[in-house]
Amino acid sequence: MNIDKYPSKLLENAVNEFSKLPGIGRKSALRLVLHLLRQDVGPVTYFGNSIIQLRNNIKHCKICHNISDTEICRICNNASRNRSVICVVENIRDVMSVENTQQFNGLYHVLGGIISPMDGIGPSELEIESLVNRVEKEDITEVILALSTTMEGDTTNFYIYRKLKDKEVKISTLARGVSVGDELEYTDEITLGRSLANRIPYESSMGK
Amino acid sequence: MNIDKYPSKLLENAVNEFSKLPGIGRKSALRLVLHLLRQDVGPVTYFGNSIIQLRNNIKHCKICHNISDTEICRICNNASRNRSVICVVENIRDVMSVENTQQFNGLYHVLGGIISPMDGIGPSELEIESLVNRVEKEDITEVILALSTTMEGDTTNFYIYRKLKDKEVKISTLARGVSVGDELEYTDEITLGRSLANRIPYESSMGK
Repeated sequence: MNIDKYPSKLLENAVNEFSKLPGIGRKSALRLVLHLLRQDVGPVTYFGNSIIQLRNNIKHCKICHNISDTEICRICNNASRNRSVICVVENIRDVMSVENTQQFNGLYHVLGGIISPMDGIGPSELEIESLVNRVEKEDITEVILALSTTMEGDTTNFYIYRKLKDKEVKISTLARGVSVGDELEYTDEITLGRSLANRIPYESSMGK
Repeated sequence: MNIDKYPSKLLENAVNEFSKLPGIGRKSALRLVLHLLRQDVGPVTYFGNSIIQLRNNIKHCKICHNISDTEICRICNNASRNRSVICVVENIRDVMSVENTQQFNGLYHVLGGIISPMDGIGPSELEIESLVNRVEKEDITEVILALSTTMEGDTTNFYIYRKLKDKEVKISTLARGVSVGDELEYTDEITLGRSLANRIPYESSMGK
């Protein structure tokens, strides 16, 4: 069905805007817009304003660069967290992922991406200098590199490692190994090889 | 992944709003919101405003009740259309569907739904009186009932038929039959039975 003839410019405009979102085509966009038209004015206005306010009022934490409603984010402001450990992640979504494990009680540092020459992203585009500053000025004992296990992630890890290796700080990275619940048969050989090389005492695998 | 802990109220609010849309869960909503956060302020503000303006400024045509940017819609205002034929449809989406066939050059009448006692929708909730008024006051020669071929659609068709049968107007309905491209083997027996009963001269099937 060709749905490019809309009875209203306002409708067409809203459909155009929705179809710019990732994974939403023109048909889905029309469905969403017609759904909004069936709602009351109040909730739809609220929806529109929530988008505008999101983009206009959201801040990035001055310390860790995570998104925040305040100058300093809730995690950096939380006195009960371990202020001597920094977990370095690529983006705000990864902060949420690590938080959801409930296994980490330190602070974060959001790089805002990883080094990727193909996409024109070099170290200067990322929050690496500010990480080095934090390590120099704050009382940091460990930096955990929690980036993707891709070539770009490894490159970024190595770049940060070189920047920090002469400071008095322990640098660690996420354990690479067989995923919990995976069958060996379906584990790729590189992961399996690394998990063999980095094998751990059986006792320490008994924790959850 | 439990993604209910958001680093920002603004973010959480936007995710809540997006996840109210049909077919969009909390994970997809988060993905859309993070996408918006990566865009510039201008386009995102424009997007939000397009939603607010859509709902606040859109009008319903005073004649056919299709949505419109003006008091009278583009179709009703179009002097080159056949003003003596009215195609009765359930909603604005169906107007677009019929328009896209490019086989109809008359006017429309949007009921705003179909009679559905289960959902508490009776004839008085629909634009049926205004249809009868149009037939009485305008110079209408034919009313085409183009509703869904469901029990609710049939009920609505019959209700409108009874309201109009004493007026001087031809009442027709969409042909029911085998879909173009369908194989007989997979056509349900009711459709096949009806298309047999309402068989048409071979010559008239040769048009496109």
